[in-house]
Amino acid sequence: MNPGFNIVKAGHIEFLVTDLDRARQFYVDTLGFVVSSQDSDHIFLRGLEDRQHHCLTLSRAPSPGVGHFAFKVASEDDLNAIEKLVSVAGAYSRWVDASEETGLQGKALMVEDAYGFPVEFYAKMKAEDWMLQRYDRYRGAKVMRLDHFNLMLPDAARAYEWYVNSLGFICTETTETEGPHPSLWAAWLRRKHTCHDIALTTGKGPRVHHAGFTVADRGAIMDCADLLASSGYLDRMERGPGRHGVSNAFFLYLRDPDGNRLELYTGDYLSSDPDWVPIKWKLNDPQRQTFWGTKTPESWFNEAMLVKSPRSGEFQAVKAPSIKDRPDYLISGR
Amino acid sequence: MNPGFNIVKAGHIEFLVTDLDRARQFYVDTLGFVVSSQDSDHIFLRGLEDRQHHCLTLSRAPSPGVGHFAFKVASEDDLNAIEKLVSVAGAYSRWVDASEETGLQGKALMVEDAYGFPVEFYAKMKAEDWMLQRYDRYRGAKVMRLDHFNLMLPDAARAYEWYVNSLGFICTETTETEGPHPSLWAAWLRRKHTCHDIALTTGKGPRVHHAGFTVADRGAIMDCADLLASSGYLDRMERGPGRHGVSNAFFLYLRDPDGNRLELYTGDYLSSDPDWVPIKWKLNDPQRQTFWGTKTPESWFNEAMLVKSPRSGEFQAVKAPSIKDRPDYLISGR
Amino acid sequence: MNPGFNIVKAGHIEFLVTDLDRARQFYVDTLGFVVSSQDSDHIFLRGLEDRQHHCLTLSRAPSPGVGHFAFKVASEDDLNAIEKLVSVAGAYSRWVDASEETGLQGKALMVEDAYGFPVEFYAKMKAEDWMLQRYDRYRGAKVMRLDHFNLMLPDAARAYEWYVNSLGFICTETTETEGPHPSLWAAWLRRKHTCHDIALTTGKGPRVHHAGFTVADRGAIMDCADLLASSGYLDRMERGPGRHGVSNAFFLYLRDPDGNRLELYTGDYLSSDPDWVPIKWKLNDPQRQTFWGTKTPESWFNEAMLVKSPRSGEFQAVKAPSIKDRPDYLISGR
Amino acid sequence: MNPGFNIVKAGHIEFLVTDLDRARQFYVDTLGFVVSSQDSDHIFLRGLEDRQHHCLTLSRAPSPGVGHFAFKVASEDDLNAIEKLVSVAGAYSRWVDASEETGLQGKALMVEDAYGFPVEFYAKMKAEDWMLQRYDRYRGAKVMRLDHFNLMLPDAARAYEWYVNSLGFICTETTETEGPHPSLWAAWLRRKHTCHDIALTTGKGPRVHHAGFTVADRGAIMDCADLLASSGYLDRMERGPGRHGVSNAFFLYLRDPDGNRLELYTGDYLSSDPDWVPIKWKLNDPQRQTFWGTKTPESWFNEAMLVKSPRSGEFQAVKAPSIKDRPDYLISGR
Repeated sequence: MNPGFNIVKAGHIEFLVTDLDRARQFYVDTLGFVVSSQDSDHIFLRGLEDRQHHCLTLSRAPSPGVGHFAFKVASEDDLNAIEKLVSVAGAYSRWVDASEETGLQGKALMVEDAYGFPVEFYAKMKAEDWMLQRYDRYRGAKVMRLDHFNLMLPDAARAYEWYVNSLGFICTETTETEGPHPSLWAAWLRRKHTCHDIALTTGKGPRVHHAGFTVADRGAIMDCADLLASSGYLDRMERGPGRHGVSNAFFLYLRDPDGNRLELYTGDYLSSDPDWVPIKWKLNDPQRQTFWGTKTPESWFNEAMLVKSPRSGEFQAVKAPSIKDRPDYLISGR
Repeated sequence: MNPGFNIVKAGHIEFLVTDLDRARQFYVDTLGFVVSSQDSDHIFLRGLEDRQHHCLTLSRAPSPGVGHFAFKVASEDDLNAIEKLVSVAGAYSRWVDASEETGLQGKALMVEDAYGFPVEFYAKMKAEDWMLQRYDRYRGAKVMRLDHFNLMLPDAARAYEWYVNSLGFICTETTETEGPHPSLWAAWLRRKHTCHDIALTTGKGPRVHHAGFTVADRGAIMDCADLLASSGYLDRMERGPGRHGVSNAFFLYLRDPDGNRLELYTGDYLSSDPDWVPIKWKLNDPQRQTFWGTKTPESWFNEAMLVKSPRSGEFQAVKAPSIKDRPDYLISGR
Repeated sequence: MNPGFNIVKAGHIEFLVTDLDRARQFYVDTLGFVVSSQDSDHIFLRGLEDRQHHCLTLSRAPSPGVGHFAFKVASEDDLNAIEKLVSVAGAYSRWVDASEETGLQGKALMVEDAYGFPVEFYAKMKAEDWMLQRYDRYRGAKVMRLDHFNLMLPDAARAYEWYVNSLGFICTETTETEGPHPSLWAAWLRRKHTCHDIALTTGKGPRVHHAGFTVADRGAIMDCADLLASSGYLDRMERGPGRHGVSNAFFLYLRDPDGNRLELYTGDYLSSDPDWVPIKWKLNDPQRQTFWGTKTPESWFNEAMLVKSPRSGEFQAVKAPSIKDRPDYLISGR
Repeated sequence: MNPGFNIVKAGHIEFLVTDLDRARQFYVDTLGFVVSSQDSDHIFLRGLEDRQHHCLTLSRAPSPGVGHFAFKVASEDDLNAIEKLVSVAGAYSRWVDASEETGLQGKALMVEDAYGFPVEFYAKMKAEDWMLQRYDRYRGAKVMRLDHFNLMLPDAARAYEWYVNSLGFICTETTETEGPHPSLWAAWLRRKHTCHDIALTTGKGPRVHHAGFTVADRGAIMDCADLLASSGYLDRMERGPGRHGVSNAFFLYLRDPDGNRLELYTGDYLSSDPDWVPIKWKLNDPQRQTFWGTKTPESWFNEAMLVKSPRSGEFQAVKAPSIKDRPDYLISGR
């Protein structure tokens, strides 16, 4: 269980956008992310609670998707230990120099894991002013910080082994398929003391289903729904607001103007105890996805973000899973 | 516009239920209505803000529906004036003695209006303790008071004339059909200074679509959704929580164990000014019903409560409207 | 009780400010009032729910205070009836031409009542866009509309007679002094269907203690406290946030940069019924002012806004009341 | 910094109460703590989010105070390592058998630290049903879990060294005295990823100032204030509701019927990063204690809970600090 290194938390994610100005209008002017820095090809954003340079990078690109996502580790020694582990496992990795990513300090390790995901590990990032008590800067969704990545992939059970046994993640909740011989269908795994830093769900992949961002409270999500509905972003709300069964969080799923998906998320629980016993759900439980029984739209299962291969720089091809990739109760339309 | 009498507000409604104990568990133990009195065939309920005996009567009956709904008037003189108006209009009415309805004081007038609805008018009701600052009594949905009746009927435009020109209601909002020759499809009419005391909507009728009850705030509606989902009432939530376009209110629609429909409702506006210009909506505006664009389930348009004829004591037969009875964007399922 | 005319509601108030730019920064940039128009000497403001030109006027003046406050009436006929009443009562009044106050339409009546207050009555005002569903315009305290005026004067009991018997106000709550022979110490009076349009309280006067503005909900008041504390306005919060006993409203009292006092207010009750029985409080009840028992700072009783005489254009001289002007439980400091 | 063992979090605290029935009425019937078990001398309570037997024990005793407080560690090995550390440091400790404390599993270590506090360390506790999604069980303050202990002692700086250097706590915030040669006046230290598990503040001690319990959200604190004010507990609210500067949390301080102090607390931040730079405050900063500038009552500095010596079973004698024990801006009264 102790992997010999310390992954601290989900650290940041890079969204590819085709129009930086349009993306800025959505993320900054409307949702209220704080701009740490900007150049001609990138906008680096943080939340009100963040004390470091970025948790979300918007990068100009010909088509949408995810450039990479990254975990923060405790020290550079941890990077070296991860590099060794990845190398032994036969996966691709390369060192990233601080100069390659604005805000990074010291080196980072970019990995293409066995499932095809572009995963960066880094230890240090430039410090930024804390906006937590700058309530005069609170806007839109009152985004506090990045919370988690939700990955969709054909073999969630195998990736579970990698994250838990090799990378030291702890499982807080699972979903299993129905029937006498249930398979692991999804898992919520954490390093920091919340419900999760990463979720692994069964579906066509490798794709990133969404990135979850913590917001101030339930009211902020309601207010944000009202705001988006008044700001020309009506069709950017895909699912919710509602209460999750898994995680117990209050949520709203958004699609940015390029279709990249993010979740506004608040109200999960403290998971600090190492003797935590995972909460188990069945795939067809009507309260699993939305505790209030509201059905999930089909698009939520069909669509997700392609990911770039760190090796080739191209989007990874996707494969379908061998098991059912969704519950039985979807609706067509929201 | 001044009808020579003063209707104060939507006063109370009688829901027919087939199992009083089951209904009590839903309305009292779960939603938190306050019981003013109870006999073998009725439970008389009020909200936390009410200072009078009841705003909701549950009456044991062989099948669900609405026994009658009632408007409070300023004085007994107003009752006499309304009796005269109704008589001239050729509608059925009869005097109700205070002994016929627990809590009533003085006489009431029971009318079967030209549209077939059982409408009571009354001036005085027994005083009860105010629970507004008895926060130790707050439960469930924190129901404050009755807000409005929503009626479904084939000819909303004709009923509009009756309510506005004869009864002195003021129109706050309307919905019109699409196209070059729009018809009035629905109207929101008020006596008290809120969005409405009564809504008239086009559909099979005469039926009561729902009764709306004001709750403390948006948080109370969210909390109530969580509570119902934990209390075996998952399938009793039909639509919402969400924000209305019309009325701007935050809402959740419920079906009681018999299928009678009520709305938890909060956050409309002050409409005190006699020079209020009605807000106009088009039937297919995606933000009209739910400001966030969420679609309405079919059941919401198909199902409504039958009403008892004051004359025959039987349920009124229903007729279909000659114009379209719903927008184009419904979904099948919630 | 029926005075032969119809006062609709508390309509607007004029605050005198010594620095318009500084006032704009407070009211518009921070609290989020909507600017309807502005000239070199005035800023005309409305709330998000208002459909008319202004509910608050900021007027450049050598020293702070209240220029006038105004009630909206239903029609110009009502203005004539009030002029007659005032004239019979021997009070000063004059007709105000629409050109004298931006936004006014038709004439208005400016009265100096027997207690020295500058009270305007008007029927019509320029229509403005409704911002209620322009959630992209919501800022700061999310001010919805003007709710009430709170007046401080030596003889509240006598003014009570004028407002109730001559002007047709309805009493919702009262405060009486302690002891075997209690006097009326304060009264809350309404025309619209809320707790009050005007409160009359015992103290040095004539002065306006504060104007109360309705905000979206309890959360908006909390958020506003955080915002003011982050915006250099820490010392502009005088009392609260808290829950009132009288009115049951949630509140925060502010002093603008000139010391004029306003209340952010939300969550009172519907008072539509003409047979409402007033709620009675005793002056020393520890839950009367703040339901949670928190004591009120001395400044809240000592300080209030001077009012201009419509006759002389000078501030009215103030007189002390013959009865005790405050409860026994004050604190020095907040 | 790595002490060779792993303290997980603040685990539970034992409050001494003189009347168990009266205490149950306050903690269970009003605040809504969940009862895990009860015997003639104790009530064992947990929060809605807790999955283990207790976070608060009420023990019948001749006078109020704190019996002990406890940290959860990751394993029994950690207990052995702490025993060794404590023994080397010359402090008193003894092994507690699981049979001595209902709910404990395996042994625990009871320490009297160098500052006189009764600190228990334990690894395992009986599992209990999770109430997080049993919204039908939510009551009163919606207490989720224990968050922190706040200790008052004459030499906070020395205790800081013990907690950080020997026990492996991480400092998130500090308060220093004013002047050219500031002393550490208070420190907030954490093991779990929140603002703190323990606060060390300068004052007469050893005493426990309060135990902080996490509640669902800001609304739960407001609702609880209304509830307490309606339930005969008006004088049990000592300070708040308000927003802290330190921790940024929303709070309400309560005194139980015996005078033991607890804090309802919500809305601090994620502190997972080992490279966190402590936030620094000065003792007299008016926004340090309450971000809105509201002054703290004297009782909050004068009164705190005596602690029992694990060695003698008697309350520890208290000593005054050599430096100032409070800021300059207190008020007498609330």
